[in-house]
This record gives sequence, C-alpha cells and structure tokens, in this order.
Amino acid sequence: MQKLLFTPGPLTTSRTVKEAMLEDMGSRDYEFMNAVKEIRNDLLRLGGIGQEDGYECVIMQGSGTFCIESVISSVVGRSDSLLVMVNGAYGERIAKMAVIQQIKHQVARFGEDEIITGESTEKWLKEYPETTHLVCVHSETTTGLLNPVKRIGQVCKQHKVIFIVDAMSSFGGVEMDMKEMKIDFLVSSSNKCIEGVPGFAFALCNRKELEKSKGLARSLSLDLFDQWNGLETNGQFRFTPPTLSIMAFRQALRELEKEGGVKARQERYKANKAVLDEGMARLGFKEYLQPSKQGHIITAFLYPDHRNFEFERFYKKLNDRGLVIYPGKLSKVNAFRIGNIGHLFPADFKTLVAAIEEILEEESIQLV
Amino acid sequence: MQKLLFTPGPLTTSRTVKEAMLEDMGSRDYEFMNAVKEIRNDLLRLGGIGQEDGYECVIMQGSGTFCIESVISSVVGRSDSLLVMVNGAYGERIAKMAVIQQIKHQVARFGEDEIITGESTEKWLKEYPETTHLVCVHSETTTGLLNPVKRIGQVCKQHKVIFIVDAMSSFGGVEMDMKEMKIDFLVSSSNKCIEGVPGFAFALCNRKELEKSKGLARSLSLDLFDQWNGLETNGQFRFTPPTLSIMAFRQALRELEKEGGVKARQERYKANKAVLDEGMARLGFKEYLQPSKQGHIITAFLYPDHRNFEFERFYKKLNDRGLVIYPGKLSKVNAFRIGNIGHLFPADFKTLVAAIEEILEEESIQLV
Repeated sequence: MQKLLFTPGPLTTSRTVKEAMLEDMGSRDYEFMNAVKEIRNDLLRLGGIGQEDGYECVIMQGSGTFCIESVISSVVGRSDSLLVMVNGAYGERIAKMAVIQQIKHQVARFGEDEIITGESTEKWLKEYPETTHLVCVHSETTTGLLNPVKRIGQVCKQHKVIFIVDAMSSFGGVEMDMKEMKIDFLVSSSNKCIEGVPGFAFALCNRKELEKSKGLARSLSLDLFDQWNGLETNGQFRFTPPTLSIMAFRQALRELEKEGGVKARQERYKANKAVLDEGMARLGFKEYLQPSKQGHIITAFLYPDHRNFEFERFYKKLNDRGLVIYPGKLSKVNAFRIGNIGHLFPADFKTLVAAIEEILEEESIQLV
Repeated sequence: MQKLLFTPGPLTTSRTVKEAMLEDMGSRDYEFMNAVKEIRNDLLRLGGIGQEDGYECVIMQGSGTFCIESVISSVVGRSDSLLVMVNGAYGERIAKMAVIQQIKHQVARFGEDEIITGESTEKWLKEYPETTHLVCVHSETTTGLLNPVKRIGQVCKQHKVIFIVDAMSSFGGVEMDMKEMKIDFLVSSSNKCIEGVPGFAFALCNRKELEKSKGLARSLSLDLFDQWNGLETNGQFRFTPPTLSIMAFRQALRELEKEGGVKARQERYKANKAVLDEGMARLGFKEYLQPSKQGHIITAFLYPDHRNFEFERFYKKLNDRGLVIYPGKLSKVNAFRIGNIGHLFPADFKTLVAAIEEILEEESIQLV
C-alpha cells in the first residue's frame, strides 16, 4: 500500500522522484558529479542567492541534525560565544549540541507558543554582548510556529553577530531570501519541502564566514569547511554520499521548478492547510497555537478532551487506512501533528479529514 | 544506461533492492520500525552473534566514516588511549579523526603493502602499555589487502585492550565471527558487501563496552550509546533515518540469505576475482600487492608503463561503455582499483576484461 505521509518528513514524494533511484550511480562518476553541481546551484538559487553573491552550498551526509551540528561545531570557534534561541524541541536540541560540543553558549528560552521577536532578540543580545553567533529555528516543527527570521536577522547584523538559521522544515515551502534575511548559514534537509527522500542535508553559507572556519571543526565527518573544500576541489564528496537520495533530490528540484518554484509550492501547502483547518475545526479539534502564530508547514492539534480518545488507537486506525500522521513533541501538552507538506494536495486532506470523521464515529467520540 | 560499478561501493545492486525504495515510508511508522528491528537482528547474525551473546547492533546515519567516528569518539574516554594501526588511506583517516577529536592516541604506521601481523601488534602494544583501545582496518580498500583480524584480536585480548575493527568493505563478503575474532566493535556500511544502497552504516557492539560509553560521546549526532538507547527504547531513530535506503537494505539482506549467506557470496566474489586476475594478467597489467596479501574484495592495478596510457581517458572510455572502475588512493604509486563486490557475476568481469582489451587496442597499448 502506498501510504500518504502527513508528517514533517520523511514525507510523501512523487513516483518520479523515487524512480530516479532505480539506477546505480558511482560516487566518483561524472554523471553523479554533474548532478551534485546542479543541485548545489539550484539550492543557492532557491535561497535567492548565488556563488556570485558570495554564498556556497555544502551538502552533508546524514539527517538535518547532523548538518546543524556540522555548522555549529565548525563555525563557532573556541573563543566565540553562541546564543541559542529556543521555543521548541528543535531549538532545545541545538542547545544540547552546544553543551556536548563544549561550545561557549547561552540559551534564550521562550514558551513553546511564543514567537521570538526582534525586540526579545535585541534584549538577549544586550544581556550577552559577548555573543558572536546566534542560532534560531525558522519553522519550529514542535508546534508549527514560524519565527520572524528577517527581523531577527536585522537585529543580529546591528550587533555584528553571525546569524545561523535552522530552516529544516521551511526551506522550499516558505519564500526566503538569505541576503534580505541577513542569514549567514541556513540549514535544511533533503526530505522536507523540496520533497526529496531522506539521506542528507545542506547548508547555504556566507562564503567569507565559511572560509574563517577552516581548521576549527571539532570532528572529521562534520567538518563543514573541509566538506565544502572537497566538493570544490574535485566535485566529489570526501566520504561516500547517499548517491541515490541525491539523484532523487535532483529530480525533486526539477519538479519544484516545474510546479512554479517556492511561491507556487507555498500556495499549495497553504491550500492543504486550509482544507485541514476547516475540517478539523468542524470536527471539534483545537489547535495548540493561536492562528496568528501558526505557520503553514505543520499543525499541532491538542488531544481532544474525551475519554474515548486514545492516540495510539487513533493513529493505528488512520495508518490502517494508509494515512500516516505524526506524534506530538510538546513538553507539557498532549498533542499530535499533521504536516501540510510533501507531494500532497487538497484532495488528500479531504480524504484525511473524512477518515478522521469516520474514526471518531467508530470510537463514539463526539466533540461538537 | 544501467552502468556496472566495479568499485568498492556505492556498488551495483539488484533491481529488486532498488525497487524496495519505491514506497514512501514514515520514520515513526510500525512497518519501518519492524524493518529496522529485522535488520539489526540479521546483522548480528551475520557477525556470528546475537543479543543473547551480549552484542548489539547500532545503525548510524551518514557514510561509513561517520560510523567509525561515532565509535571512536564515543567509546574512547578522556583518560583512555587509542592505538591506530595504519597500512593504508582508511587507517590514516582514523588517525586523522583521533587528532581532530583530541583523543589521546598513538599511530602504528606500516607500509601500504605490508600486513599488520599479530607479532607487530604485540610489539606496538608493549611499546605503548597505556593503550586501552586498538583500531585497525580489516580489508584496506586502498590496496585490497586483508589484515588478519583474528590474530590481532587475540593479541588485544591478551593485553586487555578493546578491539575496534573497520570492516567496511569486508563484512558480508568475508566470513567473520565477532566472538572468535575477539572484536568489541565492528563497523561496516550499507553499500558494501551486503549490496544495499548508501545512506547509513552500522556498528556491531559488545554491549558491556557500549554501556560504558554512556555520556562519553563528543557530539550529539554521532553519540553511539544515545543512538542505541533511542533504538532500544522505542524502536525509532533519534534523528531522521534514511528510510528508503533502510528498506532497500532489508531487501538486500534477504537476497544475501537467499544466495546462501556470506559463504556463498564470498565464493561469488572469489570467482569474480579469478576472472579479473586471469584477464588482467593476460593483458599485461600488474597488481600492486603480492598475491599472498591480496584479498578478494578489491584489487589495485598499477598504471601500465606505456606512454599511451592516460588514466582519465581509459576511465572515460570504460565509462562510456557503462563500466565504472575506481581511481587509486595509494600514497606513492599510481594505480587504479577494480572491485569484485556488488551484484556482479563472473560474466560481468569477462565483459570488463574484453572492454579493457578493446580499449588497449584502440589506444595502441601493447603490454605483453
């Protein structure tokens, strides 16, 4: 059964993206090297930039977290100080990285339902004037909240602070311009809004800052500069890349282009969300976030206050129908999540809502 | 064109292995978690062990190097001392990791054409009695040399030293028994002799030693204990796994079983090598290693001493015929490499030799 994944990724991909993996590919072969080159250029273009603007794209094996850790542990030097802005589990994860990597850092903690504003960024940077690097999550997948990175970026630049953005679940599904947003390092992954399959992640980097990180990395595998240097020197990865995930990703980028780019994709995701929102509200589900804070990538729904609702059973019944949703990750509230991203269309969300309605009936759960 | 990859991996895989990637898979979905469980058990079994013997299998995202670094940087504590045995580029890479990770270590360097014997291991361990962990490469992919890990393991145990083996290009293609070989940590990857696609690697671990590494890791992403703990707690990965590479790998393991296990696969690879050896010798190519040191995984051939031979052109002409070989990696000698592994059969090696013969004629290169 081909399931539909209403998750923040790995997500549903097109048949043609998956079929791009049906041919074996040598990692040092010309054809593969050309694909890597095409991808690196396309990704910069999606960020509104190019090599001519002083930016570089580095692909890193592993999950998105690996690439975030690659950036953090490569570009924040021994005498630098990192400010980690946290309003969800993914920001918290970066703070944990800083502890383990023994990076000098401070953590600015916000509520999980609270936006990180320019004003609060300003306040924290004044409190910690030693800050050299600031990192924040764009779309907090914990809740689906979107932090205003453009505003945060402006404040960073006023304080001459390097700005690192975890745009894992937003890049490709939210229009972004690295230059306008003053982002020095942006990280995202293959299995999010570009709708590829998992296996790697990538960083779009301000070249000048990337160059400064030479020799600073705290590990061999996650050395961002060295990885870039390898790709630039001979077009090859230092260590075996996930060749077929990369070929699938090239196809995904071509399909994104064909769809009309990030703008068109954003519109589709918003249309998905509209169907979901309307349907879930009608059935009596409540969203965790206030609508003004809710992005269009993923939504956290509170467990309904009904004694018949048991999440595992609800999840399993949807799964049996080929519809996969996502558990919650909030620290204090029980919720589940539904992603609006991936190769999914409003009709799929109608199917999902209808299935949820059916299950509520089966379970004798009436919420309205 | 479906190319044949005569490389040490990413290598040629069966059509059915690749087709296992045609279905989207949620990373927290039951079906996926069951596949992961099956794989982890199968891998232990291939190493001649099981959980009941006190061993555990940990899957790590990224390339094989990521997993080696995960082991090294997780299990060698701050007051421990690592002895790195080096007789090729891959051993050298581990030494580099130890430097970057600031792990207390010594490097035992051998010639690239020299086997690491039990006697030399004994000598080095006597010279550095502070050694707590020893790491060596089993099949040095630089040359194709096979180090006698069983003998080295015996010496390690006599010295109460933890034994770590990089079995990247041997595991699944060379019969191995972790217990008999006294290996505490064995690392290999998805895209080698098990004939899966790239995207992850795995470590087979002595559970007692793995447990001791709790809290020792120097990075979040590469924390071996934490990764294991995550898999054990809820059957899920801490961070997004390469879902489809993993589904392909499950299929690859089933096909390995069907072929007759490691023993049968080893025989096929040896049969491949026999065709290659005979053909290349007939054409006048010389192998870098003495036959007694040469394993059946990959062979390094010296550039022929003929003014018409230009490797790039030779490579390209083979590539145009859909036959992909591998560049060399020797420090002082020009060579290219041909892998005997992957979903390739003696008939494929006949095709390769015939193509090489044809190209030599085209280039007017007569070596015999």
